[in-house]
Amino acid sequence: MLEALLSFQQRNNQQLESWLSQLPYQNQPLVEAMRYGLLLGGKRARPFLVYITGQMLGCQVDELDTPASAVECIHAYSLIHDDLPAMDDDELRRGQMTCHIKFDEATAILTGDALQTLAFTILADGKLNPNAEPLRIKMVKTLAEASGAAGMCMGQALDLQAENRLISLEELEEIHRNKTGALMKCAIRLGALAAGEKGVEVMPLLDKYADAIGLAFQVQDDILDIVSDTETLGKPQGSDQELNKSTYPALLGLQGAIDKADKLLQEALQALDAIPYNTELLEEFARYVVERKN
Amino acid sequence: MLEALLSFQQRNNQQLESWLSQLPYQNQPLVEAMRYGLLLGGKRARPFLVYITGQMLGCQVDELDTPASAVECIHAYSLIHDDLPAMDDDELRRGQMTCHIKFDEATAILTGDALQTLAFTILADGKLNPNAEPLRIKMVKTLAEASGAAGMCMGQALDLQAENRLISLEELEEIHRNKTGALMKCAIRLGALAAGEKGVEVMPLLDKYADAIGLAFQVQDDILDIVSDTETLGKPQGSDQELNKSTYPALLGLQGAIDKADKLLQEALQALDAIPYNTELLEEFARYVVERKN
Repeated sequence: MLEALLSFQQRNNQQLESWLSQLPYQNQPLVEAMRYGLLLGGKRARPFLVYITGQMLGCQVDELDTPASAVECIHAYSLIHDDLPAMDDDELRRGQMTCHIKFDEATAILTGDALQTLAFTILADGKLNPNAEPLRIKMVKTLAEASGAAGMCMGQALDLQAENRLISLEELEEIHRNKTGALMKCAIRLGALAAGEKGVEVMPLLDKYADAIGLAFQVQDDILDIVSDTETLGKPQGSDQELNKSTYPALLGLQGAIDKADKLLQEALQALDAIPYNTELLEEFARYVVERKN
Repeated sequence: MLEALLSFQQRNNQQLESWLSQLPYQNQPLVEAMRYGLLLGGKRARPFLVYITGQMLGCQVDELDTPASAVECIHAYSLIHDDLPAMDDDELRRGQMTCHIKFDEATAILTGDALQTLAFTILADGKLNPNAEPLRIKMVKTLAEASGAAGMCMGQALDLQAENRLISLEELEEIHRNKTGALMKCAIRLGALAAGEKGVEVMPLLDKYADAIGLAFQVQDDILDIVSDTETLGKPQGSDQELNKSTYPALLGLQGAIDKADKLLQEALQALDAIPYNTELLEEFARYVVERKN
Protein backbone atom coordinates (compact mmCIF):
# COMPACT_ATOMS: atom_id res chain seq x y z
CA MET A 1 0.00 0.00 0.00
CA LEU A 2 2.84 2.41 0.76
CA GLU A 3 3.79 2.33 -2.91
CA ALA A 4 0.27 3.36 -3.88
CA LEU A 5 0.24 6.03 -1.18
CA LEU A 6 3.47 7.53 -2.53
CA SER A 7 2.30 7.37 -6.10
CA PHE A 8 -1.04 9.07 -5.38
CA GLN A 9 0.81 11.61 -3.22
CA GLN A 10 2.98 12.59 -6.18
CA ARG A 11 0.01 12.64 -8.51
CA ASN A 12 -1.95 14.83 -6.08
CA ASN A 13 0.98 17.23 -5.75
CA GLN A 14 1.19 17.59 -9.53
CA GLN A 15 -2.54 18.21 -9.74
CA LEU A 16 -2.46 20.83 -7.00
CA GLU A 17 0.52 22.53 -8.63
CA SER A 18 -1.37 22.60 -11.90
CA TRP A 19 -4.35 24.35 -10.26
CA LEU A 20 -2.05 26.80 -8.48
CA SER A 21 -0.23 27.62 -11.70
CA GLN A 22 -3.53 28.72 -13.28
CA LEU A 23 -4.01 31.47 -10.72
CA PRO A 24 -3.24 35.04 -11.72
CA TYR A 25 -0.69 37.02 -9.66
CA GLN A 26 1.85 34.17 -9.54
CA ASN A 27 4.48 36.46 -8.04
CA GLN A 28 2.33 37.52 -5.10
CA PRO A 29 3.12 36.27 -1.56
CA LEU A 30 -0.48 35.00 -1.32
CA VAL A 31 0.06 32.52 -4.16
CA GLU A 32 3.53 31.65 -2.86
CA ALA A 33 2.02 30.93 0.57
CA MET A 34 -0.77 28.84 -0.96
CA ARG A 35 1.88 26.76 -2.73
CA TYR A 36 3.91 26.48 0.49
CA GLY A 37 0.88 25.42 2.53
CA LEU A 38 -0.37 22.94 -0.05
CA LEU A 39 2.75 21.27 -1.29
CA LEU A 40 5.22 21.10 1.58
CA GLY A 41 4.96 17.62 2.97
CA GLY A 42 1.90 15.80 4.19
CA LYS A 43 0.83 12.21 3.72
CA ARG A 44 -2.15 13.04 1.48
CA ALA A 45 -4.33 10.59 3.39
CA ARG A 46 -7.56 12.26 2.20
CA PRO A 47 -6.67 12.30 -1.51
CA PHE A 48 -5.54 8.69 -1.09
CA LEU A 49 -8.97 7.77 0.26
CA VAL A 50 -10.62 9.49 -2.71
CA TYR A 51 -8.41 7.57 -5.16
CA ILE A 52 -8.72 4.11 -3.64
CA THR A 53 -12.47 4.40 -3.07
CA GLY A 54 -13.10 5.65 -6.61
CA GLN A 55 -10.81 3.08 -8.22
CA MET A 56 -12.46 0.28 -6.24
CA LEU A 57 -15.73 1.37 -7.89
CA GLY A 58 -14.22 1.39 -11.38
CA CYS A 59 -13.15 5.01 -11.87
CA GLN A 60 -10.08 5.89 -13.90
CA VAL A 61 -7.45 7.70 -11.87
CA ASP A 62 -7.79 10.95 -13.83
CA GLU A 63 -11.51 11.02 -13.00
CA LEU A 64 -10.58 11.23 -9.32
CA ASP A 65 -8.06 14.06 -9.46
CA THR A 66 -10.78 16.67 -9.03
CA PRO A 67 -12.26 15.51 -5.70
CA ALA A 68 -8.80 14.46 -4.43
CA SER A 69 -7.43 17.96 -5.03
CA ALA A 70 -10.48 19.70 -3.60
CA VAL A 71 -10.44 17.78 -0.36
CA GLU A 72 -6.70 18.36 0.11
CA CYS A 73 -7.20 22.13 -0.32
CA ILE A 74 -9.72 22.08 2.53
CA HIS A 75 -7.37 20.04 4.70
CA ALA A 76 -4.41 22.34 3.98
CA TYR A 77 -6.44 25.47 4.74
CA SER A 78 -7.58 24.02 8.05
CA LEU A 79 -3.99 23.24 9.10
CA ILE A 80 -2.85 26.79 8.28
CA HIS A 81 -5.65 28.36 10.31
CA ASP A 82 -5.35 25.86 13.19
CA ASP A 83 -1.65 26.73 13.53
CA LEU A 84 -2.33 30.49 13.92
CA PRO A 85 -1.27 32.21 17.17
CA ALA A 86 -4.93 32.74 18.18
CA MET A 87 -5.61 29.01 17.71
CA ASP A 88 -3.03 26.31 18.48
CA ASP A 89 -0.05 28.69 18.08
CA ASP A 90 2.22 26.13 16.40
CA GLU A 91 5.52 27.08 14.80
CA LEU A 92 6.28 23.70 13.28
CA ARG A 93 4.18 21.58 10.94
CA ARG A 94 5.38 18.58 8.97
CA GLY A 95 8.87 19.47 10.17
CA GLN A 96 8.72 22.91 8.53
CA MET A 97 7.85 26.42 9.62
CA THR A 98 4.11 26.97 9.80
CA CYS A 99 2.64 29.41 7.28
CA HIS A 100 2.35 32.42 9.61
CA ILE A 101 5.99 31.96 10.70
CA LYS A 102 7.30 31.56 7.15
CA PHE A 103 5.18 34.48 5.87
CA ASP A 104 3.12 36.53 8.33
CA GLU A 105 -0.17 36.21 10.14
CA ALA A 106 -2.25 38.24 7.72
CA THR A 107 -0.93 36.24 4.78
CA ALA A 108 -1.61 32.98 6.61
CA ILE A 109 -5.24 33.97 7.26
CA LEU A 110 -5.76 34.94 3.62
CA THR A 111 -3.94 31.82 2.42
CA GLY A 112 -6.32 29.61 4.35
CA ASP A 113 -9.27 31.58 3.04
CA ALA A 114 -8.10 31.33 -0.56
CA LEU A 115 -7.33 27.61 -0.28
CA GLN A 116 -10.86 26.97 0.94
CA THR A 117 -12.18 28.88 -2.06
CA LEU A 118 -9.85 27.00 -4.39
CA ALA A 119 -11.36 23.72 -3.19
CA PHE A 120 -14.75 24.83 -4.51
CA THR A 121 -13.29 26.18 -7.75
CA ILE A 122 -11.68 22.80 -8.36
CA LEU A 123 -14.80 20.82 -7.53
CA ALA A 124 -16.96 23.06 -9.74
CA ASP A 125 -14.52 23.16 -12.62
CA GLY A 126 -12.37 20.03 -12.69
CA LYS A 127 -12.74 16.90 -14.78
CA LEU A 128 -15.17 14.19 -13.68
CA ASN A 129 -16.39 10.89 -15.08
CA PRO A 130 -19.48 11.64 -17.23
CA ASN A 131 -21.48 9.34 -14.91
CA ALA A 132 -20.58 11.60 -12.01
CA GLU A 133 -21.53 14.85 -13.75
CA PRO A 134 -25.14 14.75 -12.44
CA LEU A 135 -23.68 14.32 -8.94
CA ARG A 136 -21.27 17.27 -9.13
CA ILE A 137 -23.54 19.56 -7.10
CA LYS A 138 -24.00 16.80 -4.55
CA MET A 139 -20.21 16.65 -4.30
CA VAL A 140 -20.03 20.41 -3.64
CA LYS A 141 -22.70 20.06 -0.97
CA THR A 142 -20.91 17.08 0.58
CA LEU A 143 -17.62 18.97 0.77
CA ALA A 144 -19.25 22.10 2.20
CA GLU A 145 -21.16 20.21 4.86
CA ALA A 146 -18.07 18.32 5.96
CA SER A 147 -15.97 21.50 6.14
CA GLY A 148 -18.12 24.11 7.84
CA ALA A 149 -20.13 24.70 11.00
CA ALA A 150 -21.71 21.25 10.67
CA GLY A 151 -18.31 19.56 10.42
CA MET A 152 -14.63 20.44 10.52
CA CYS A 153 -14.92 24.10 11.63
CA MET A 154 -17.24 23.10 14.45
CA GLY A 155 -14.79 20.38 15.48
CA GLN A 156 -12.01 22.94 15.83
CA ALA A 157 -14.36 25.27 17.75
CA LEU A 158 -15.35 22.46 20.13
CA ASP A 159 -11.70 21.50 20.51
CA LEU A 160 -10.69 25.05 21.50
CA GLN A 161 -13.46 25.11 24.07
CA ALA A 162 -12.29 21.83 25.54
CA GLU A 163 -8.80 23.14 26.32
CA ASN A 164 -7.88 23.32 29.98
CA ARG A 165 -10.87 21.35 31.18
CA LEU A 166 -11.65 17.70 31.66
CA ILE A 167 -14.14 16.38 29.11
CA SER A 168 -15.97 13.09 28.81
CA LEU A 169 -15.23 10.39 26.27
CA GLU A 170 -18.48 11.31 24.48
CA GLU A 171 -17.39 14.94 24.16
CA LEU A 172 -13.96 13.90 22.91
CA GLU A 173 -15.52 11.68 20.25
CA GLU A 174 -17.84 14.48 19.20
CA ILE A 175 -14.88 16.81 18.75
CA HIS A 176 -12.99 14.35 16.60
CA ARG A 177 -16.00 13.17 14.63
CA ASN A 178 -16.26 16.77 13.45
CA LYS A 179 -12.64 17.91 13.48
CA THR A 180 -10.96 15.00 11.70
CA GLY A 181 -13.67 12.48 10.95
CA ALA A 182 -15.97 14.64 8.83
CA LEU A 183 -13.38 15.43 6.16
CA MET A 184 -12.02 11.85 5.97
CA LYS A 185 -15.58 10.58 5.55
CA CYS A 186 -16.10 13.27 2.93
CA ALA A 187 -13.01 12.08 1.03
CA ILE A 188 -14.45 8.58 0.85
CA ARG A 189 -17.88 9.90 -0.13
CA LEU A 190 -16.38 12.04 -2.90
CA GLY A 191 -14.45 9.06 -4.20
CA ALA A 192 -17.72 7.09 -4.25
CA LEU A 193 -19.76 9.88 -5.88
CA ALA A 194 -17.07 10.22 -8.56
CA ALA A 195 -18.10 6.73 -9.68
CA GLY A 196 -21.72 7.81 -10.16
CA GLU A 197 -24.81 5.99 -8.90
CA LYS A 198 -22.99 2.81 -7.90
CA GLY A 199 -21.06 4.95 -5.43
CA VAL A 200 -24.31 6.20 -3.94
CA GLU A 201 -25.44 2.59 -3.43
CA VAL A 202 -22.48 1.54 -1.27
CA MET A 203 -22.31 4.86 0.61
CA PRO A 204 -23.90 3.58 3.86
CA LEU A 205 -21.27 0.86 4.21
CA LEU A 206 -18.48 3.23 3.27
CA ASP A 207 -19.78 5.67 5.89
CA LYS A 208 -19.46 2.98 8.58
CA TYR A 209 -15.89 2.29 7.49
CA ALA A 210 -15.15 6.03 7.41
CA ASP A 211 -16.57 6.70 10.86
CA ALA A 212 -14.37 3.98 12.33
CA ILE A 213 -11.10 4.91 10.63
CA GLY A 214 -11.68 8.65 11.14
CA LEU A 215 -11.85 8.13 14.88
CA ALA A 216 -9.04 5.56 14.84
CA PHE A 217 -6.84 8.09 13.06
CA GLN A 218 -7.30 10.53 15.92
CA VAL A 219 -6.81 7.92 18.64
CA GLN A 220 -3.53 6.96 16.98
CA ASP A 221 -2.53 10.64 16.70
CA ASP A 222 -3.04 10.99 20.44
CA ILE A 223 -1.03 7.85 21.10
CA LEU A 224 1.82 9.04 18.88
CA ASP A 225 1.88 12.40 20.68
CA ILE A 226 2.96 10.43 23.74
CA VAL A 227 5.08 7.57 22.44
CA SER A 228 6.78 9.12 19.40
CA ASP A 229 9.54 11.72 19.23
CA THR A 230 9.53 15.21 17.73
CA GLU A 231 11.67 14.26 14.74
CA THR A 232 9.43 11.38 13.66
CA LEU A 233 6.27 13.43 14.23
CA GLY A 234 7.43 16.60 12.49
CA LYS A 235 5.89 18.59 15.32
CA PRO A 236 6.81 18.90 18.99
CA GLN A 237 6.16 15.65 20.84
CA GLY A 238 3.90 16.17 23.84
CA SER A 239 2.28 19.30 22.40
CA ASP A 240 -1.22 18.06 23.25
CA GLN A 241 -0.27 17.64 26.91
CA GLU A 242 1.27 21.10 26.90
CA LEU A 243 -2.03 22.63 25.77
CA ASN A 244 -3.86 20.58 28.41
CA LYS A 245 -5.88 18.95 25.68
CA SER A 246 -8.00 15.98 26.53
CA THR A 247 -6.79 12.93 24.64
CA TYR A 248 -7.72 9.26 24.42
CA PRO A 249 -4.66 8.14 26.43
CA ALA A 250 -5.53 10.75 29.08
CA LEU A 251 -9.09 9.43 29.37
CA LEU A 252 -8.49 5.71 28.77
CA GLY A 253 -4.83 5.21 29.70
CA LEU A 254 -2.26 4.33 27.03
CA GLN A 255 -3.30 0.66 26.83
CA GLY A 256 -6.97 1.65 26.80
CA ALA A 257 -6.30 3.94 23.83
CA ILE A 258 -4.40 1.19 21.99
CA ASP A 259 -7.33 -1.19 22.60
CA LYS A 260 -9.77 1.47 21.39
CA ALA A 261 -7.80 1.91 18.16
CA ASP A 262 -7.86 -1.84 17.60
CA LYS A 263 -11.61 -2.04 18.25
CA LEU A 264 -12.19 0.70 15.67
CA LEU A 265 -9.99 -1.14 13.18
CA GLN A 266 -12.16 -4.24 13.59
CA GLU A 267 -15.32 -2.15 13.01
CA ALA A 268 -13.80 -0.73 9.84
CA LEU A 269 -12.88 -4.17 8.53
CA GLN A 270 -16.36 -5.51 9.28
CA ALA A 271 -17.95 -2.72 7.24
CA LEU A 272 -15.68 -3.59 4.31
CA ASP A 273 -16.72 -7.26 4.45
CA ALA A 274 -20.18 -6.31 3.21
CA ILE A 275 -18.93 -4.30 0.22
CA PRO A 276 -19.09 -6.32 -3.04
CA TYR A 277 -15.92 -4.83 -4.55
CA ASN A 278 -12.20 -5.37 -4.07
CA THR A 279 -11.67 -3.59 -0.75
CA GLU A 280 -8.03 -4.60 -0.34
CA LEU A 281 -6.54 -1.09 -0.32
CA LEU A 282 -9.23 0.27 2.00
CA GLU A 283 -8.40 -2.60 4.34
CA GLU A 284 -4.68 -1.90 4.16
CA PHE A 285 -5.34 1.77 4.81
CA ALA A 286 -7.35 0.94 7.93
CA ARG A 287 -4.46 -1.12 9.25
CA TYR A 288 -2.00 1.62 8.35
CA VAL A 289 -4.06 4.17 10.32
CA VAL A 290 -3.54 2.36 13.60
CA GLU A 291 -0.04 1.06 12.87
CA ARG A 292 1.62 4.22 11.53
CA LYS A 293 4.48 5.85 13.44
CA ASN A 294 3.86 9.46 12.37
CA MET B 1 -35.22 52.57 -4.43
CA LEU B 2 -34.57 52.88 -0.69
CA GLU B 3 -37.87 51.13 -0.03
CA ALA B 4 -36.80 48.21 -2.19
CA LEU B 5 -33.38 48.19 -0.52
CA LEU B 6 -34.97 47.95 2.92
CA SER B 7 -37.42 45.29 1.83
CA PHE B 8 -34.73 43.08 0.25
CA GLN B 9 -32.53 43.69 3.30
CA GLN B 10 -35.24 42.29 5.58
CA ARG B 11 -35.90 39.41 3.23
CA ASN B 12 -32.20 38.58 3.06
CA ASN B 13 -31.90 38.68 6.87
CA GLN B 14 -34.79 36.24 7.20
CA GLN B 15 -33.23 33.94 4.63
CA LEU B 16 -29.84 34.02 6.33
CA GLU B 17 -31.46 33.37 9.71
CA SER B 18 -33.28 30.42 8.22
CA TRP B 19 -30.00 28.91 6.96
CA LEU B 20 -28.31 29.56 10.31
CA SER B 21 -31.16 27.94 12.21
CA GLN B 22 -30.61 24.70 10.27
CA LEU B 23 -27.08 24.32 11.61
CA PRO B 24 -26.45 21.81 14.39
CA TYR B 25 -24.86 23.06 17.63
CA GLN B 26 -27.10 26.15 17.89
CA ASN B 27 -25.85 26.88 21.41
CA GLN B 28 -22.18 27.00 20.39
CA PRO B 29 -20.30 30.34 20.30
CA LEU B 30 -19.34 29.57 16.69
CA VAL B 31 -22.98 29.63 15.54
CA GLU B 32 -23.69 32.63 17.77
CA ALA B 33 -20.76 34.47 16.18
CA MET B 34 -21.89 33.51 12.67
CA ARG B 35 -25.31 34.99 13.47
CA TYR B 36 -23.67 38.11 14.93
CA GLY B 37 -21.42 38.61 11.92
CA LEU B 38 -24.14 37.96 9.36
CA LEU B 39 -27.14 39.75 10.80
CA LEU B 40 -25.89 42.79 12.68
CA GLY B 41 -26.38 45.72 10.35
CA GLY B 42 -25.09 46.15 6.83
CA LYS B 43 -26.76 47.58 3.76
CA ARG B 44 -27.00 44.27 1.90
CA ALA B 45 -25.81 45.93 -1.29
CA ARG B 46 -24.72 42.63 -2.83
CA PRO B 47 -27.97 40.73 -2.16
CA PHE B 48 -29.80 43.81 -3.47
CA LEU B 49 -27.85 43.56 -6.72
CA VAL B 50 -28.75 39.87 -7.02
CA TYR B 51 -32.44 40.64 -6.48
CA ILE B 52 -32.78 43.60 -8.83
CA THR B 53 -30.76 41.97 -11.60
CA GLY B 54 -32.72 38.73 -11.39
CA GLN B 55 -36.10 40.45 -11.18
CA MET B 56 -35.24 42.62 -14.16
CA LEU B 57 -34.76 39.37 -16.10
CA GLY B 58 -38.08 37.93 -14.94
CA CYS B 59 -37.13 35.87 -11.87
CA GLN B 60 -39.51 35.54 -8.95
CA VAL B 61 -38.05 36.91 -5.74
CA ASP B 62 -37.92 33.48 -4.04
CA GLU B 63 -35.80 32.19 -6.92
CA LEU B 64 -33.16 34.75 -5.99
CA ASP B 65 -32.88 34.09 -2.28
CA THR B 66 -30.23 31.41 -2.81
CA PRO B 67 -27.59 33.47 -4.64
CA ALA B 68 -28.42 36.56 -2.54
CA SER B 69 -27.75 34.66 0.68
CA ALA B 70 -24.62 32.98 -0.64
CA VAL B 71 -22.98 36.21 -1.76
CA GLU B 72 -23.77 37.92 1.56
CA CYS B 73 -22.12 35.04 3.47
CA ILE B 74 -18.93 35.61 1.50
CA HIS B 75 -19.09 39.35 2.12
CA ALA B 76 -19.71 38.87 5.86
CA TYR B 77 -16.82 36.41 6.20
CA SER B 78 -14.47 38.82 4.44
CA LEU B 79 -15.38 41.65 6.82
CA ILE B 80 -14.77 39.47 9.88
CA HIS B 81 -11.33 38.39 8.66
CA ASP B 82 -10.38 41.87 7.40
CA ASP B 83 -11.12 43.30 10.86
CA LEU B 84 -8.76 40.85 12.63
CA PRO B 85 -5.76 42.26 14.57
CA ALA B 86 -3.31 40.83 12.03
CA MET B 87 -5.20 42.54 9.19
CA ASP B 88 -6.90 45.95 9.57
CA ASP B 89 -7.21 45.61 13.38
CA ASP B 90 -10.64 47.29 13.58
CA GLU B 91 -12.72 47.28 16.75
CA LEU B 92 -15.82 48.85 15.26
CA ARG B 93 -17.87 47.74 12.26
CA ARG B 94 -21.33 48.99 11.34
CA GLY B 95 -21.32 50.85 14.66
CA GLN B 96 -20.89 47.60 16.63
CA MET B 97 -18.02 45.64 18.11
CA THR B 98 -16.17 43.60 15.50
CA CYS B 99 -16.43 39.83 15.81
CA HIS B 100 -13.04 39.24 17.46
CA ILE B 101 -13.80 41.94 20.06
CA LYS B 102 -17.29 40.62 20.81
CA PHE B 103 -16.09 37.01 20.90
CA ASP B 104 -12.38 36.25 20.56
CA GLU B 105 -9.83 35.99 17.81
CA ALA B 106 -9.97 32.22 17.38
CA THR B 107 -13.75 32.31 17.17
CA ALA B 108 -13.60 35.15 14.64
CA ILE B 109 -11.22 33.20 12.40
CA LEU B 110 -13.43 30.10 12.54
CA THR B 111 -16.57 32.19 12.05
CA GLY B 112 -15.21 33.64 8.83
CA ASP B 113 -14.15 30.17 7.70
CA ALA B 114 -17.55 28.67 8.42
CA LEU B 115 -19.41 31.55 6.74
CA GLN B 116 -17.40 31.02 3.58
CA THR B 117 -18.35 27.35 3.67
CA LEU B 118 -21.99 28.21 4.33
CA ALA B 119 -22.03 30.29 1.14
CA PHE B 120 -21.24 27.17 -0.87
CA THR B 121 -23.70 25.02 1.06
CA ILE B 122 -26.42 27.54 0.26
CA LEU B 123 -25.53 27.79 -3.42
CA ALA B 124 -25.36 24.01 -3.77
CA ASP B 125 -28.52 23.33 -1.82
CA GLY B 126 -30.91 26.30 -2.03
CA LYS B 127 -33.92 26.80 -4.28
CA LEU B 128 -33.41 28.03 -7.86
CA ASN B 129 -35.62 28.65 -10.86
CA PRO B 130 -35.77 25.39 -12.87
CA ASN B 131 -34.27 27.30 -15.84
CA ALA B 132 -31.25 28.09 -13.69
CA GLU B 133 -30.70 24.51 -12.50
CA PRO B 134 -28.31 23.66 -15.38
CA LEU B 135 -26.33 26.78 -14.42
CA ARG B 136 -25.98 25.97 -10.73
CA ILE B 137 -22.42 24.69 -11.08
CA LYS B 138 -21.55 27.77 -13.11
CA MET B 139 -22.88 29.83 -10.20
CA VAL B 140 -20.64 27.95 -7.75
CA LYS B 141 -17.68 28.54 -10.04
CA THR B 142 -18.55 32.21 -10.43
CA LEU B 143 -18.76 32.71 -6.67
CA ALA B 144 -15.51 30.84 -6.02
CA GLU B 145 -13.57 32.75 -8.65
CA ALA B 146 -14.81 36.09 -7.35
CA SER B 147 -13.95 35.21 -3.75
CA GLY B 148 -10.53 33.60 -3.82
CA ALA B 149 -6.98 34.18 -4.99
CA ALA B 150 -8.27 35.39 -8.36
CA GLY B 151 -10.60 37.94 -6.73
CA MET B 152 -11.51 39.21 -3.28
CA CYS B 153 -8.78 37.45 -1.25
CA MET B 154 -6.14 38.68 -3.66
CA GLY B 155 -7.57 42.20 -3.38
CA GLN B 156 -7.13 42.14 0.38
CA ALA B 157 -3.61 40.73 -0.01
CA LEU B 158 -2.68 43.48 -2.50
CA ASP B 159 -4.24 46.07 -0.19
CA LEU B 160 -2.15 44.93 2.79
CA GLN B 161 0.98 45.14 0.68
CA ALA B 162 0.13 48.67 -0.40
CA GLU B 163 0.04 50.01 3.16
CA ASN B 164 2.66 52.57 4.05
CA ARG B 165 3.80 53.10 0.48
CA LEU B 166 2.72 55.30 -2.36
CA ILE B 167 1.05 53.39 -5.15
CA SER B 168 -0.08 54.40 -8.62
CA LEU B 169 -3.66 54.89 -9.72
CA GLU B 170 -3.39 51.66 -11.75
CA GLU B 171 -2.33 49.70 -8.69
CA LEU B 172 -5.12 51.24 -6.63
CA GLU B 173 -7.69 50.24 -9.24
CA GLU B 174 -6.29 46.73 -9.37
CA ILE B 175 -6.66 46.42 -5.61
CA HIS B 176 -10.26 47.55 -5.65
CA ARG B 177 -11.23 45.64 -8.78
CA ASN B 178 -10.34 42.53 -6.78
CA LYS B 179 -11.16 43.54 -3.23
CA THR B 180 -14.59 45.10 -3.70
CA GLY B 181 -15.37 44.93 -7.41
CA ALA B 182 -15.11 41.18 -7.93
CA LEU B 183 -17.84 40.28 -5.43
CA MET B 184 -20.22 43.04 -6.55
CA LYS B 185 -19.80 41.89 -10.13
CA CYS B 186 -20.37 38.35 -8.93
CA ALA B 187 -23.64 39.40 -7.25
CA ILE B 188 -24.90 40.80 -10.54
CA ARG B 189 -23.71 37.74 -12.45
CA LEU B 190 -25.45 35.40 -10.01
CA GLY B 191 -28.67 37.41 -10.34
CA ALA B 192 -28.37 37.05 -14.10
CA LEU B 193 -27.54 33.32 -14.02
CA ALA B 194 -30.53 32.75 -11.73
CA ALA B 195 -32.69 33.76 -14.70
CA GLY B 196 -31.15 31.07 -16.89
CA GLU B 197 -29.84 31.51 -20.44
CA LYS B 198 -31.26 34.99 -20.95
CA GLY B 199 -29.04 36.10 -18.07
CA VAL B 200 -26.01 34.66 -19.85
CA GLU B 201 -26.91 36.70 -22.97
CA VAL B 202 -26.83 40.10 -21.23
CA MET B 203 -23.84 39.25 -19.04
CA PRO B 204 -21.26 41.27 -21.03
CA LEU B 205 -23.31 44.47 -20.63
CA LEU B 206 -23.99 43.74 -16.98
CA ASP B 207 -20.25 43.18 -16.48
CA LYS B 208 -19.54 46.67 -17.83
CA TYR B 209 -22.10 48.15 -15.46
CA ALA B 210 -20.67 46.11 -12.58
CA ASP B 211 -17.07 47.12 -13.26
CA ALA B 212 -18.07 50.79 -13.16
CA ILE B 213 -20.22 50.72 -10.02
CA GLY B 214 -17.80 48.41 -8.20
CA LEU B 215 -15.04 50.95 -8.59
CA ALA B 216 -17.39 53.89 -7.96
CA PHE B 217 -18.42 52.24 -4.68
CA GLN B 218 -14.81 52.25 -3.51
CA VAL B 219 -14.10 55.79 -4.70
CA GLN B 220 -17.13 56.96 -2.72
CA ASP B 221 -15.98 54.93 0.32
CA ASP B 222 -12.65 56.76 0.18
CA ILE B 223 -14.41 60.12 -0.14
CA LEU B 224 -16.68 59.36 2.82
CA ASP B 225 -13.69 58.37 4.94
CA ILE B 226 -12.61 62.01 4.63
CA VAL B 227 -15.83 64.02 4.53
CA SER B 228 -18.14 61.99 6.80
CA ASP B 229 -18.09 61.57 10.58
CA THR B 230 -17.60 58.45 12.68
CA GLU B 231 -21.24 58.23 13.75
CA THR B 232 -22.60 58.31 10.21
CA LEU B 233 -19.96 55.85 8.97
CA GLY B 234 -20.27 53.36 11.83
CA LYS B 235 -16.49 53.11 11.85
CA PRO B 236 -13.78 55.61 12.81
CA GLN B 237 -13.63 58.47 10.32
CA GLY B 238 -10.15 58.91 8.89
CA SER B 239 -9.17 55.28 9.53
CA ASP B 240 -7.75 54.91 6.01
CA GLN B 241 -5.43 57.86 6.55
CA GLU B 242 -4.36 56.41 9.89
CA LEU B 243 -3.25 53.20 8.19
CA ASN B 244 -1.45 55.23 5.53
CA LYS B 245 -3.62 53.63 2.90
CA SER B 246 -3.54 54.99 -0.60
CA THR B 247 -6.97 56.34 -1.53
CA TYR B 248 -8.53 58.07 -4.52
CA PRO B 249 -8.66 61.46 -2.75
CA ALA B 250 -4.98 61.04 -1.80
CA LEU B 251 -4.03 60.34 -5.43
CA LEU B 252 -6.53 62.60 -7.23
CA GLY B 253 -7.45 65.22 -4.63
CA LEU B 254 -10.95 65.37 -3.18
CA GLN B 255 -12.46 67.07 -6.25
CA GLY B 256 -10.62 64.69 -8.56
CA ALA B 257 -12.11 61.74 -6.66
CA ILE B 258 -15.60 63.24 -6.88
CA ASP B 259 -15.14 63.71 -10.64
CA LYS B 260 -13.89 60.12 -10.95
CA ALA B 261 -16.99 58.80 -9.17
CA ASP B 262 -19.19 60.80 -11.52
CA LYS B 263 -17.34 59.53 -14.58
CA LEU B 264 -17.83 55.95 -13.41
CA LEU B 265 -21.53 56.62 -12.83
CA GLN B 266 -21.86 57.78 -16.44
CA GLU B 267 -20.09 54.61 -17.66
CA ALA B 268 -22.49 52.49 -15.63
CA LEU B 269 -25.53 54.29 -17.03
CA GLN B 270 -24.25 53.92 -20.59
CA ALA B 271 -23.92 50.16 -20.15
CA LEU B 272 -27.51 50.00 -18.94
CA ASP B 273 -28.75 51.90 -22.01
CA ALA B 274 -27.95 48.89 -24.18
CA ILE B 275 -29.83 46.38 -22.00
CA PRO B 276 -33.30 45.57 -23.41
CA TYR B 277 -35.00 45.23 -20.01
CA ASN B 278 -36.31 47.64 -17.39
CA THR B 279 -33.04 48.81 -15.83
CA GLU B 280 -34.61 51.44 -13.58
CA LEU B 281 -33.49 49.95 -10.24
CA LEU B 282 -29.97 49.23 -11.50
CA GLU B 283 -29.82 52.88 -12.60
CA GLU B 284 -31.04 54.11 -9.23
CA PHE B 285 -28.53 51.88 -7.49
CA ALA B 286 -25.69 53.35 -9.54
CA ARG B 287 -26.75 56.85 -8.52
CA TYR B 288 -27.09 55.74 -4.90
CA VAL B 289 -23.53 54.36 -4.93
CA VAL B 290 -21.99 57.76 -5.58
CA GLU B 291 -24.53 59.81 -3.61
CA ARG B 292 -24.72 57.78 -0.38
CA LYS B 293 -23.53 59.29 2.89
CA ASN B 294 -22.41 56.09 4.62
